[in-house]
Amino acid sequence: MKKLSEMTSEELLAFKNETEKQYLDFKSLNLSLDMSRGKPAPAQLDLTMPMISILDGEKLSAENGFDCRNYGVLDGIPEAKKMFADVLGVEPENIIVYGNSSLAIMYDTISRAWSHGILGSKPWCKYDKVKFLCPVPGYDRHFSICEYFGIEMINVPTNEYGPDMDMVEKLVSEDETVKGIWCVPQYSNPTGISYSDEVVKRFANLKPKAADFRIFWDNAYCIHHLTSSPECILNIFDECKKAGNENLVYEFMSTSKISFPGSGVAVIATSVENAEYIKKGLGISTIGFDKINQLRHVKFFGNADGLKAHMNKHMEILAPKFNVVIEELEKNIAPLGIASWHKAEGGYFISFDAMKGCAKRIVSLCKEAGVVLTGAGATYPYGKDPDDSNIRIAPSYPTVDELRKAMELFCICIRLASVEKMIGA
Amino acid sequence: MKKLSEMTSEELLAFKNETEKQYLDFKSLNLSLDMSRGKPAPAQLDLTMPMISILDGEKLSAENGFDCRNYGVLDGIPEAKKMFADVLGVEPENIIVYGNSSLAIMYDTISRAWSHGILGSKPWCKYDKVKFLCPVPGYDRHFSICEYFGIEMINVPTNEYGPDMDMVEKLVSEDETVKGIWCVPQYSNPTGISYSDEVVKRFANLKPKAADFRIFWDNAYCIHHLTSSPECILNIFDECKKAGNENLVYEFMSTSKISFPGSGVAVIATSVENAEYIKKGLGISTIGFDKINQLRHVKFFGNADGLKAHMNKHMEILAPKFNVVIEELEKNIAPLGIASWHKAEGGYFISFDAMKGCAKRIVSLCKEAGVVLTGAGATYPYGKDPDDSNIRIAPSYPTVDELRKAMELFCICIRLASVEKMIGA
Repeated sequence: MKKLSEMTSEELLAFKNETEKQYLDFKSLNLSLDMSRGKPAPAQLDLTMPMISILDGEKLSAENGFDCRNYGVLDGIPEAKKMFADVLGVEPENIIVYGNSSLAIMYDTISRAWSHGILGSKPWCKYDKVKFLCPVPGYDRHFSICEYFGIEMINVPTNEYGPDMDMVEKLVSEDETVKGIWCVPQYSNPTGISYSDEVVKRFANLKPKAADFRIFWDNAYCIHHLTSSPECILNIFDECKKAGNENLVYEFMSTSKISFPGSGVAVIATSVENAEYIKKGLGISTIGFDKINQLRHVKFFGNADGLKAHMNKHMEILAPKFNVVIEELEKNIAPLGIASWHKAEGGYFISFDAMKGCAKRIVSLCKEAGVVLTGAGATYPYGKDPDDSNIRIAPSYPTVDELRKAMELFCICIRLASVEKMIGA
Repeated sequence: MKKLSEMTSEELLAFKNETEKQYLDFKSLNLSLDMSRGKPAPAQLDLTMPMISILDGEKLSAENGFDCRNYGVLDGIPEAKKMFADVLGVEPENIIVYGNSSLAIMYDTISRAWSHGILGSKPWCKYDKVKFLCPVPGYDRHFSICEYFGIEMINVPTNEYGPDMDMVEKLVSEDETVKGIWCVPQYSNPTGISYSDEVVKRFANLKPKAADFRIFWDNAYCIHHLTSSPECILNIFDECKKAGNENLVYEFMSTSKISFPGSGVAVIATSVENAEYIKKGLGISTIGFDKINQLRHVKFFGNADGLKAHMNKHMEILAPKFNVVIEELEKNIAPLGIASWHKAEGGYFISFDAMKGCAKRIVSLCKEAGVVLTGAGATYPYGKDPDDSNIRIAPSYPTVDELRKAMELFCICIRLASVEKMIGA
């Protein structure tokens, strides 16, 4: 195969005709596949099925004797706090165990800052403008929260080590209305990169102009490895402590992609001072979260090591799917020199960059042929990818065979959109 | 026994000495009992234990085939929506099934109105002042939400039929900053009264000055009867429809006191227009609530009739406790003419009114002797009972024997505080 850029006009036209034919053949297969979100596959959910009956015949008391069936316990039963503290490398006093969704915790955290400020600061709703930094490409649901509150989002480019820290440091230290930054530090959504030690250290050493600036450290994929020798990012809390910056970070994680999405357990980890402040507000809105489900999780996983061991089983199911994506791209796209991608070592996504101006067309071609991808632009604030280039590939849900088929189609769509672009058709 | 008001000074002094002696005897028993909250007793929680294993071997699919183990479904699985719709006498389209706590829904509803307004209205945070009407005595956690947001609370007296509707109508129709009213329409917390048909109709026919005024209809005790011929309040949605006022009401309920507090399911019922607006915001903060727990509840209760039948078992446990409270008050306090109370036909509380200025003293005497009651004043906004008279009795948690003992002590404390007051000691 020749690179597209090296083809003559005639060769391009022939390539286009051939690709169109392949596309039409695929359309006639009437595929129907939704790859728009990072959903675990049924086979992954099956791994957790024994949890459903794990409490049969149990007394439903926490290790401190508290009856988990009744009211009370705002911040989680002790054994759940301990398990998540160990996963995140903090103390149980840094942990608040919430309900089923870390996204809900992030929303809640911003919503409370909006109405009440943080640790005595002015409520964000009292500002004419509040801004968040958004490393791009990033997670659309983070951006949706900002958009919902009218928080202005500032794109921050990312490279293989993390966000552009020169830009982050400058904006954070100069602008009092910059109140937060969204980070997925390990196996980023969607790029799959993990922040380098230097990036983590620079985050921990930020000197924000705003006392109520916080890093929203969404460690959604902290133990979601795809290799047996996983990359590990630095513990940001340790670095913050060294820097005397203990209140700087809110870290989030959940078991949504470990046990059951929607029926898992989510936590925030933060300084004791932040945690106490959060609990004061949280105690107004609830008496407590689902302790029986917390107990269910602790009984099933045992401890942090049990959680990690369970993730190896997920890896066995997921890794071959990621390989299919990379194989197909390497085989069908790499020789053409029309796109780039990152082979993620963990997480749920592969970030794909098409030729400028091609992402929307590719996603639309796929959809027409029955494969729904994450919308082009979704990985950017306001849904606006300035280059119309980035596409998030979510390979987890389909079976390997379905995925192979979907990737064949995806590659045809990439080729078609690219050649269309090149010949200006 | 003579009424205290008919006793001579000498008789009062003798009565005081005798009561003090009884009190000291009680203190030496070293009781330790927490009656501060409306917590179900372990025997009630035992009723729901089979729910823990009800999903063993089940496929965990909703009736429409949706895999409840995975992401999705913002407003609840169809069979859960149907079950709660039938309990509340509305259509499934009026129901949003949330997580584990109706208090959290109420907080969330106010928080969203604070940041975003309601159906396009000005966000409440943009007002200099926002007010809520608070029928008193009422539920302290309602009041705490208002206090947290700095919402000014206006006390509205209640009688045996419900809140003073003349006052409600006047304030709601005249003041654009009056944005809501807290109601526990059936078996009110703490008075135990249920709103008369006329009161419900007058609520449904309110003509608020503020388009974003809402009735917060906390129907927490809608099926929590203590007699086999329960009082039933009018369906406010039917009345609102007749009045062309469909957007006026947010109704809340949960299974916290039906299945497990903290591990139950909570819902809001409201007009389709309100529900659609709520879902638009809710979809920003979460992908969905715990559908497996919704399934667990539907499998266990079957339907609305199953829920109601289950409540008969609760009644068998609770009714004798309420009887103990009333018996002890009738026997030890009624003849003295120093207090009044209401025999609730349902719900979780008995509201007790001591002589003016005695409630704090009674609660404090009880506490000193080992029985913790709900704090005096808690049933009023800002914790301020202008008469220092109301005490909420929560008889559900102790056993009948413990409760008998606690009530004996309570009666002694009432007598002591009252006689102290009368002789000015």
